[in-house]
Amino acid sequence: MSAPLDARLARFNASLAFDIRLAREDLRGSRAWAGALARACVLQADECHALQRGLDEIEAEFEQGSFATQPSDEDIHTAVERRLTERLGPLAGKLHTGRSRNDQVATDFRLWIMAHTEKLTSAALDLQQALLHSALADLHTPMPGYTHLRRAQPITWGHWALSHFWPLVRDLRRLDEARQTASVLPLGSGALAGTGFAIDRLALARELGFDDVSANSLDAVSDRDFAVVFLFACALLGVHLSRLSEQLLLFSTEEFGFVVLDDSFTTGSSLMPHKRNPDGLELARGKAGRLVGHLAGLLMTLKALPSAYDKDLQEDKEPVFDAFDTLEPALPVLTGLIGTLHLQRGRMRSAISPETLTVDLADWLAAQGVPFRQAHELVGRAVRLAETRGVALDRMAADDWRSISPLLGEEAGGHFDVPAALERRSAVGGTSTRALEAQAASARDWLAAHGRIMSG
Amino acid sequence: MSAPLDARLARFNASLAFDIRLAREDLRGSRAWAGALARACVLQADECHALQRGLDEIEAEFEQGSFATQPSDEDIHTAVERRLTERLGPLAGKLHTGRSRNDQVATDFRLWIMAHTEKLTSAALDLQQALLHSALADLHTPMPGYTHLRRAQPITWGHWALSHFWPLVRDLRRLDEARQTASVLPLGSGALAGTGFAIDRLALARELGFDDVSANSLDAVSDRDFAVVFLFACALLGVHLSRLSEQLLLFSTEEFGFVVLDDSFTTGSSLMPHKRNPDGLELARGKAGRLVGHLAGLLMTLKALPSAYDKDLQEDKEPVFDAFDTLEPALPVLTGLIGTLHLQRGRMRSAISPETLTVDLADWLAAQGVPFRQAHELVGRAVRLAETRGVALDRMAADDWRSISPLLGEEAGGHFDVPAALERRSAVGGTSTRALEAQAASARDWLAAHGRIMSG
Amino acid sequence: MSAPLDARLARFNASLAFDIRLAREDLRGSRAWAGALARACVLQADECHALQRGLDEIEAEFEQGSFATQPSDEDIHTAVERRLTERLGPLAGKLHTGRSRNDQVATDFRLWIMAHTEKLTSAALDLQQALLHSALADLHTPMPGYTHLRRAQPITWGHWALSHFWPLVRDLRRLDEARQTASVLPLGSGALAGTGFAIDRLALARELGFDDVSANSLDAVSDRDFAVVFLFACALLGVHLSRLSEQLLLFSTEEFGFVVLDDSFTTGSSLMPHKRNPDGLELARGKAGRLVGHLAGLLMTLKALPSAYDKDLQEDKEPVFDAFDTLEPALPVLTGLIGTLHLQRGRMRSAISPETLTVDLADWLAAQGVPFRQAHELVGRAVRLAETRGVALDRMAADDWRSISPLLGEEAGGHFDVPAALERRSAVGGTSTRALEAQAASARDWLAAHGRIMSG
Amino acid sequence: MSAPLDARLARFNASLAFDIRLAREDLRGSRAWAGALARACVLQADECHALQRGLDEIEAEFEQGSFATQPSDEDIHTAVERRLTERLGPLAGKLHTGRSRNDQVATDFRLWIMAHTEKLTSAALDLQQALLHSALADLHTPMPGYTHLRRAQPITWGHWALSHFWPLVRDLRRLDEARQTASVLPLGSGALAGTGFAIDRLALARELGFDDVSANSLDAVSDRDFAVVFLFACALLGVHLSRLSEQLLLFSTEEFGFVVLDDSFTTGSSLMPHKRNPDGLELARGKAGRLVGHLAGLLMTLKALPSAYDKDLQEDKEPVFDAFDTLEPALPVLTGLIGTLHLQRGRMRSAISPETLTVDLADWLAAQGVPFRQAHELVGRAVRLAETRGVALDRMAADDWRSISPLLGEEAGGHFDVPAALERRSAVGGTSTRALEAQAASARDWLAAHGRIMSG
Repeated sequence: MSAPLDARLARFNASLAFDIRLAREDLRGSRAWAGALARACVLQADECHALQRGLDEIEAEFEQGSFATQPSDEDIHTAVERRLTERLGPLAGKLHTGRSRNDQVATDFRLWIMAHTEKLTSAALDLQQALLHSALADLHTPMPGYTHLRRAQPITWGHWALSHFWPLVRDLRRLDEARQTASVLPLGSGALAGTGFAIDRLALARELGFDDVSANSLDAVSDRDFAVVFLFACALLGVHLSRLSEQLLLFSTEEFGFVVLDDSFTTGSSLMPHKRNPDGLELARGKAGRLVGHLAGLLMTLKALPSAYDKDLQEDKEPVFDAFDTLEPALPVLTGLIGTLHLQRGRMRSAISPETLTVDLADWLAAQGVPFRQAHELVGRAVRLAETRGVALDRMAADDWRSISPLLGEEAGGHFDVPAALERRSAVGGTSTRALEAQAASARDWLAAHGRIMSG
Repeated sequence: MSAPLDARLARFNASLAFDIRLAREDLRGSRAWAGALARACVLQADECHALQRGLDEIEAEFEQGSFATQPSDEDIHTAVERRLTERLGPLAGKLHTGRSRNDQVATDFRLWIMAHTEKLTSAALDLQQALLHSALADLHTPMPGYTHLRRAQPITWGHWALSHFWPLVRDLRRLDEARQTASVLPLGSGALAGTGFAIDRLALARELGFDDVSANSLDAVSDRDFAVVFLFACALLGVHLSRLSEQLLLFSTEEFGFVVLDDSFTTGSSLMPHKRNPDGLELARGKAGRLVGHLAGLLMTLKALPSAYDKDLQEDKEPVFDAFDTLEPALPVLTGLIGTLHLQRGRMRSAISPETLTVDLADWLAAQGVPFRQAHELVGRAVRLAETRGVALDRMAADDWRSISPLLGEEAGGHFDVPAALERRSAVGGTSTRALEAQAASARDWLAAHGRIMSG
Repeated sequence: MSAPLDARLARFNASLAFDIRLAREDLRGSRAWAGALARACVLQADECHALQRGLDEIEAEFEQGSFATQPSDEDIHTAVERRLTERLGPLAGKLHTGRSRNDQVATDFRLWIMAHTEKLTSAALDLQQALLHSALADLHTPMPGYTHLRRAQPITWGHWALSHFWPLVRDLRRLDEARQTASVLPLGSGALAGTGFAIDRLALARELGFDDVSANSLDAVSDRDFAVVFLFACALLGVHLSRLSEQLLLFSTEEFGFVVLDDSFTTGSSLMPHKRNPDGLELARGKAGRLVGHLAGLLMTLKALPSAYDKDLQEDKEPVFDAFDTLEPALPVLTGLIGTLHLQRGRMRSAISPETLTVDLADWLAAQGVPFRQAHELVGRAVRLAETRGVALDRMAADDWRSISPLLGEEAGGHFDVPAALERRSAVGGTSTRALEAQAASARDWLAAHGRIMSG
Repeated sequence: MSAPLDARLARFNASLAFDIRLAREDLRGSRAWAGALARACVLQADECHALQRGLDEIEAEFEQGSFATQPSDEDIHTAVERRLTERLGPLAGKLHTGRSRNDQVATDFRLWIMAHTEKLTSAALDLQQALLHSALADLHTPMPGYTHLRRAQPITWGHWALSHFWPLVRDLRRLDEARQTASVLPLGSGALAGTGFAIDRLALARELGFDDVSANSLDAVSDRDFAVVFLFACALLGVHLSRLSEQLLLFSTEEFGFVVLDDSFTTGSSLMPHKRNPDGLELARGKAGRLVGHLAGLLMTLKALPSAYDKDLQEDKEPVFDAFDTLEPALPVLTGLIGTLHLQRGRMRSAISPETLTVDLADWLAAQGVPFRQAHELVGRAVRLAETRGVALDRMAADDWRSISPLLGEEAGGHFDVPAALERRSAVGGTSTRALEAQAASARDWLAAHGRIMSG
């Protein structure tokens, strides 16, 4: 006689604590499977109806919160089957005909990911709307642009805000790719070798909303690419949020002072009465680590796994659930924070030091025929001369300018003109009025194509 | 006066040792940029031609291996500009008008990735061909399929080989996604704020083979999604190769004995004269770690980076180059190894123990109306009874079978029929003759759609 | 007036769901802090006693499971303070004098890690005992040793089992290192700049069981090395468990057949009645990914964090808790599994093919003065000749041996002697009777030094 | 006859391109091995001398750069043996007696890590000296301390600089731990089962500078903990450097303006003539990703590897070499950068806004018997009142203060005293004159104990 399962192993093995989140998908998959068995003449019509009604009632229990798990329930699949047996007796035992937990769990999990990429998509679209809204309100408000965290050239708030819109466009494409990757039905693959009954898998796929069916039963039960692809989309989205957050953190310091976070988006200190802390931004920044950790962890778990199903694959769910639980609140927090941001337009403007216009002067020299490399050098010399003189670059004396180049003189200071500099950058993606308006229009069109109509 | 750069920092900063691999792309981008400057009337036609000729000559130096770098060359861009200046004098200084290393390097790197995803694609298609070829040769050759590394149900070699074909289909989609992600032109974004000259960026994109132009100049110079997406495609491909390798490693042990690696794909031992080691498989398995490490590393580098360009981004290239250098030989090694594999069909067949057909017996009982759960239990009891009796399951006495269920008896042993079991699994992705032929045809069609015509 | 905290941010920010695990440590730290405030004359003796009594009562609530959290409790620290205020009124407000959540949470978390490294240490010692026990029972039972997953040379089961004992010795050193790294008191560092009261931090450290006090208040609140070091110790321990599990998985396949897992350590299949699946080994193998993911994730979160405290640091707890929760059951599962393993000594012995003794023959030739490289080549030639002849190497004809070398002949077959081969390897760490006994004695001594006395 | 090795596999397998860095260690190990063979009477004294002389001559070739590799050299071990054979003929073939590449490479690699942890240790001590030097020069120079990147409380430059000294103390302990972990001799373990000759392994260990010998020959050849531990020490050190760099990046922005990097530690821009970019800091920050990537990658490669030696282990070297090559220049760049930093003491001082002293006022109220929680609330109210009044907190009218609490009034402004606030924090690790001097003295002592005597 077989020895009872070691209690420590039983606990180690149990997954109900987390895979209970698949309850809805498990019930949905089982209802469809009952139908498929009936169509394959494995179940009679009344058996099928009884099973489906039983599953409906269990779903109602879940929705009312009255479903009671038992210590012996190893996972959501056995919990549901146990409950079905309590309700229907031996008939419940017919539901598992021709299927295995291996194809069942892969089906449930794919359905979950398909549904939840859509939730993240929606939250990311909200954030894009907030960014575009902020961009439109200050499309031409000047501020310094940075490279190497040093003031580089003038840009505008609208330009900056939109620079965080486009990464989200890429993220949304990846989320859609994740959804598509998940949208391949494994059900009907049995434990590994296929099902022994005449299941119409294409009909099953249609019914459950899958785009396609798996082509190989071994691959169907051992493939977790869809989970990895989902984690990757989340990880890179998380990195984008960390970059956005970092910049808002900097811009909202006393030292930069470009923006002030609304009080509703800062928290107090347990010790320091004056502190208003940007916890939301810091968490959104820090959580990128967790998302990448989950991605690396699952890839490592998959390394060198022989097919078909191995129990290691049970490790796929928690990182996916946690990635969703991380982004699902992070996105609306940033959306709300951006929607309530207070711009300090004067601080932004006054941070555009004249040095940030040196490229424009060098460009002007280049347009006069001075090779750019030489123009670059001449202007560099001017920067150092102004430093030596202890004057702002745009206030340097005409003679000093002339000592740099005969092309320069009285009017040199006139080149330090922020609006003109912004206007000069008129190629696609630049800072000119027209370029910015075109960029904003593209962003608006993109949103519209995803069902988000922005007024104004 | 400005102090000279600290020698330690100069070395730390220098990237020529690795970005010299972008030489071809840098020259190509510069030629196109010269043309764009001419079209924007920044360069005169003869200046443009002289620059382009100069760049051609430098390319010839690279191809002949006669290009000599200098210790002062910080990176490939300055090396090329230095050489161009040696050849053309001050005119060379006009080439950098309106452009920055920030948009230049992003352009070069994207071009490199676009070209090299195609190389990996081709190598992965070769591997798919080898797998399909092997599958076709033994489409119906039976072997045991495994779950939990235990014999589970009979499958065929063709089925097994094709189970590694489909993951590569997904990999190829991701490589294509990587190529598309890279195929967005950043050139014309300047350092961060756009170019001050009237560059037709769409024409430039067409000329360089990009699908699109970047929509925002800040995003254009700070975005490294394309590199991350490439690394991700490589990492997951690497994990797939590790799984394929692991299985071939197992199958080629003395203990499994399903395949023998060709002598040309094994190596000797420095100590043990009899050893034939499967180094290629082990390296292909182990290198998945390196690929995932690169992915995690670059994602970490990107975390919380403020825009636009920060020098941290220089860390993008080495992992990408190394990922390519890892897969570029790994794929053909596996292709060659699979193409020369010696199948031990007898060992495979004899490893299909009768226990692997228990599902078929349970399915038969289910078809007689026994609820599957009960059928599963009855067959489990039979397995244990055979163990107690010390006989093979398919040789158990009729009375013993009857003690299990009145439905069983003399003919019970007849259920242990491997060909019948294979044939029963006729749904899409299963092991029946027709299902396998359809699967192989799909694989062949897929390859044909990618320009690979398989004969036979 | 300050706006109320945005509800989404409040939820995003809340940590009570996980940091409630620090309740015991928080209460312990607070009791000690009250004492330190009293010694610094900030509290009067009766105030101190009242606070400590209040904290004791709250601890009792936690232990009885009657502590009720409130929706407004942001974290364990505010939950405890809220409850203390309910019990004691304004006096509770004196407890936070001179301290901040920043030094408080770091103290609690370090205490938690100190306590929980000891739990893991104990569980790892149990596993070592099981390995040593198994090794002692079959110290000299021969089996093939593998390199490249190919039979290489004979070893013994005891040798193999002990090869997994020593990695755990290193893990235990790292766990101790983790405990020591944690054992530095941050309390008394305030939010970042130190406490404004005359706290005797050394006395506080002694009372709480810390080895040392932090040297710099900024470092004290921003340092999370102790959490990273703990995660690292867990990750490498997890990798060792994955290697041990992988080998047991292989050895317990039908194909190797060296061991049979006890029924109490295998699970059934939902579909296949005959399957006995080694889920415990697979989970122990797969969970290494999760552990490494946590390590990589936290390191990423820490990247480029400015000091002193940033909210990103709140991300430190969940990976640490989960790492503990992963290993805490994994270790006893493996301990139990090894303790109940059934060795198949005949299968092991018969898998020692004569080829695994070729080194011994080459060594013998070397001892006769043949340079080893040449000896290696000669024996390699013999292996191929036996293959050609279709005979086992130890059965090859004397003439064939002579054709290889005049030193060989009739007696060549006599070199294929497993016990002699084992005995020849007598240097430290080898397979001779004496070397194995010495190794086992070292292992026993090591355990004894850690309070584990092995009988026998 | 054995087929020749496939050319693709030969290239894939070859490691000479990187393991040539082990040449010195390989030669050293081989010399010692020759001696051990002689002591074991396997070699005669003159043979041993000839071999050792041959190895010396090869070392001279390496040092003169005249060692020529051959296409057929698979790795450094075969390259050296090939060269030795060219020099000594068949005698060279005796050197490999009783040893395998498995124990040989592990020995070489451990020797390399032992030597190179010492190099990193020395470079990290240099950085600590630069930090202490900077701290001592401005031990009491006030500046704002930050939490959540918001001004929190006054600290001093010395305090800040030392907050980066102590993490390096922990790093140095981990580097020492890495050295110790490596310092266990595997040589004499053969391929896996031990050596068949009477080698005195303890003597060999002493000669080569190892602290101990491996206890189990299987573990000896499959253990790569020492490489992982080295990578971990590097990764966490890298994270510390990223945090230091990030803060210096922030402090050196135009917006913070606390420090100015010396011109010798900034680089120019290809486009913007005025830019002085902190590339060194950015690279030091960004390279943390690469280091963590290597750690995660190697851990993944090790996952589930069966013992003893598997070729996957060849993947251990490149990440270790690259980690060293990353930190070896990063440390001196930061040392040089800190040693040449220009402090802007006025900017630091003026950034200490009165709000950063609110804790001191709350502490004073607490000392008057107001429970701290209430004091915290009162001061918070004062902060908001000053905001409403539009005055600096320390300039608020006495009546306004009285409206907050009867304890406050005329003298309330007097609490906003930076030197007094610094002085109040006198516990270990705080900002008082005595606490800072004690901290600096501890740091000096620590360095002295590591052979670095700081003057002053």
